[in-house]
Amino acid sequence: MGWVRTFRNNQFIALNDGSTNTNVQVVLTLGDFNEDLLKKITTGASVKVTGDVVASPGKGQKLELKAKEVEILGDSDPEKFPLQPKKHSLEFLREIAHLRFRTNTFGSVFRIRHALAFAIHQFFNEKGFVYLHTPIITASDAEGAGEMFRVTTLPMENAPKTPEGEIDFRKDFFGRSTNLTVSGQLEGELGATALGEVYTFGPTFRAENSNTPRHLAEFWMIEPEMAFCDLEDNMNLAEEFIKYIIRYAIQNNKEDLEFLAQRLEDEEKQKPQAERSEMGLMQKLQFVVDNSFERITYTEAIDILLQSPAYKKKKFQYDVKWGIDMQSEHERYLVEKHFKKPVIVTGYPKAIKAFYMRQNEDGKTVAAMDILAPGIGEIVGGSQREERMDLLVSRMNEMNIPAEELWWYLDTRRFGSVPHAGFGLGFERMVQFVTGMTNIRDVIAFPRTPKNADF
Amino acid sequence: MGWVRTFRNNQFIALNDGSTNTNVQVVLTLGDFNEDLLKKITTGASVKVTGDVVASPGKGQKLELKAKEVEILGDSDPEKFPLQPKKHSLEFLREIAHLRFRTNTFGSVFRIRHALAFAIHQFFNEKGFVYLHTPIITASDAEGAGEMFRVTTLPMENAPKTPEGEIDFRKDFFGRSTNLTVSGQLEGELGATALGEVYTFGPTFRAENSNTPRHLAEFWMIEPEMAFCDLEDNMNLAEEFIKYIIRYAIQNNKEDLEFLAQRLEDEEKQKPQAERSEMGLMQKLQFVVDNSFERITYTEAIDILLQSPAYKKKKFQYDVKWGIDMQSEHERYLVEKHFKKPVIVTGYPKAIKAFYMRQNEDGKTVAAMDILAPGIGEIVGGSQREERMDLLVSRMNEMNIPAEELWWYLDTRRFGSVPHAGFGLGFERMVQFVTGMTNIRDVIAFPRTPKNADF
Repeated sequence: MGWVRTFRNNQFIALNDGSTNTNVQVVLTLGDFNEDLLKKITTGASVKVTGDVVASPGKGQKLELKAKEVEILGDSDPEKFPLQPKKHSLEFLREIAHLRFRTNTFGSVFRIRHALAFAIHQFFNEKGFVYLHTPIITASDAEGAGEMFRVTTLPMENAPKTPEGEIDFRKDFFGRSTNLTVSGQLEGELGATALGEVYTFGPTFRAENSNTPRHLAEFWMIEPEMAFCDLEDNMNLAEEFIKYIIRYAIQNNKEDLEFLAQRLEDEEKQKPQAERSEMGLMQKLQFVVDNSFERITYTEAIDILLQSPAYKKKKFQYDVKWGIDMQSEHERYLVEKHFKKPVIVTGYPKAIKAFYMRQNEDGKTVAAMDILAPGIGEIVGGSQREERMDLLVSRMNEMNIPAEELWWYLDTRRFGSVPHAGFGLGFERMVQFVTGMTNIRDVIAFPRTPKNADF
Repeated sequence: MGWVRTFRNNQFIALNDGSTNTNVQVVLTLGDFNEDLLKKITTGASVKVTGDVVASPGKGQKLELKAKEVEILGDSDPEKFPLQPKKHSLEFLREIAHLRFRTNTFGSVFRIRHALAFAIHQFFNEKGFVYLHTPIITASDAEGAGEMFRVTTLPMENAPKTPEGEIDFRKDFFGRSTNLTVSGQLEGELGATALGEVYTFGPTFRAENSNTPRHLAEFWMIEPEMAFCDLEDNMNLAEEFIKYIIRYAIQNNKEDLEFLAQRLEDEEKQKPQAERSEMGLMQKLQFVVDNSFERITYTEAIDILLQSPAYKKKKFQYDVKWGIDMQSEHERYLVEKHFKKPVIVTGYPKAIKAFYMRQNEDGKTVAAMDILAPGIGEIVGGSQREERMDLLVSRMNEMNIPAEELWWYLDTRRFGSVPHAGFGLGFERMVQFVTGMTNIRDVIAFPRTPKNADF
């Protein structure tokens, strides 16, 4: 049973059940089947075929199915079925995201997405990490990682008010104002400082009005957190992790990766020579697996940028100096032009990083690490966490983070505090990197973006 | 490195790193360490010990760590640390959910929860299913599975209005009214009717004011969906699946399960003899793995209830007759008293089931299946889906489901419709079943319930 991809000469059905891009060729003997049935064998229709699997005399397949019986399970009006056997644009396919899984491109993308997700669980399971489901609905907005979505059951019209005239969130479902989580990290730290090593893999949300090929309002993130672990351990784990899951895809999704590599190569041919990638998709993945990531400090990164021809020729749109939050153009220069491989940057200025990152001895920087990947930019952000209660609280005060709201977080420093570290990986960015898809909306089933929550 | 569970006689530290309930015994030679250090070795403190692993002369462990150096990583004021080495009530531990992972009970529960989650991914991966991340934020409220949480970025005070005076959701983040998902099934069907076999494993939400030991506002659900699959295949898969993940826990979490079995046995001793379980936890799990689930129709279930001594003696609170939505007391009678094992009930009246379930020939029932488990009640709900366009649309019309909003769902029936089926498993109910924990709030890290979104 499967769906008809094409039907040629009233004889050859390319049949597909969704498990692979390789169709089964079904052969119908001319004259054995009536016209009414044959007319219903159209692209998109589903059929059940009974017959004999035999060696194929034709090119392109070793075996074929010689049909004895063909039953139409569901027909598909060729005038109306939107997926014809021709090349459709990714933009068009986004509008019919409910059907695009039926194309070779999206079949490959979503099988690879699955494989990467499984590899992630397998990696952490083998290492003895505990998968922790941190809460999606949260009353905490302390991390300040970005704009949040409100979650409420109050009526939007005439919401109940306090005597002071403010919205009375005590009457809301949770008895307080709640939002969708932007990160499971703080709760991950609660797990790690008890169970040792944990990871999350769940949805996270940003209510930012960013209509770009790099942003989603709803995306999936993986956040490991390890007790008794410093920045060096953290970098080692992140590098091993990324290589592991890419290697897994190379070993388990060869056919789908090769299909997408060819697709990317065809797409690149539309570009001027200078803009084309130096490596094909397969080459790039193998290169990442085979080579050590470059490790530099933020200060070294700024120096490289200041020495670069791009800077000297004023090709950067944004200024470069110590203290800046590097822009995408800077990160891409480092990764794609200078080192030509993934780069781990450590020791960022504390002013541009979150309150929970461990302060270095220099008083200026924190034990942060970002991993930058070719074509994607930041793919991992992490740090050793500040385990020293006094330094953590004074940093929170400086940054106006309400310590009393985070009493439970501070308890981990109050009772048996330990050195610990962790990082976050944006899952869709990783899927983009492995599949070569340039728009993040093409690697998640039903993308949520400003003004779009279809399906 | 680890946390001190107990420190006896200034000599013996029971040290634990969160990976197991089995502590390492650290032995300090009397007189080798100064008093100030010894005073800081308190329950909950974290320490780093360097020394030699040697055969232990004491009872209870084969090896012990003879300490050469002890470093306090983080102290823990014994006057303030809430987890003393004594039995705390589950209610008290719920209030300090950020610390309860550090107890034996919750260490075991969350390691088993992890193992079950991994087993679920492994089961489906081995079978070639694709893990599909269906959307969390959804504009669809068509399934009618329960009350929903609104997701919005509009101000609660003075939300923008249309000229007609209604809230103008076109100005909301997604350009329309959106909610948190109650199920990924409809989107799962889109995946299955393209990729063949898919499953979801993600958070789902109910804004129901149910303050019971069985309900959460935020919980995790697994929803496989299979093309070319009927009700029989669906039942077979569900039974195989449940046995697989329980077997995985029995094989991989023996120590934690035995700990929880003992805990449950102790708890049961508080109850009158008649209310105690006939089987211990380990026995119960082995029994489920070793025996076929009973399979009966809804009509047979009603007959059994009508013939039961419980019914005849009027012991049921709710009435029994064909057509009722069976109550918990009825399900428990079937499972715990009559069959004494898991039961799959099929062929429910269509009036009490969702619009998408396939209608049987009798015109009265649908190809639904629920799996009922001892002590838990409904653990799986599933069905073969209605793949016949005309029957589906007429059922939607009868139930006032707006077909135009679900155009994308209907497209799967319009273009190459196939027989397909699937089910949903509530993950926390499964964790309860395996761990023997009686309150669902004790098997999820940070439970979300009415008036509670702590941590």
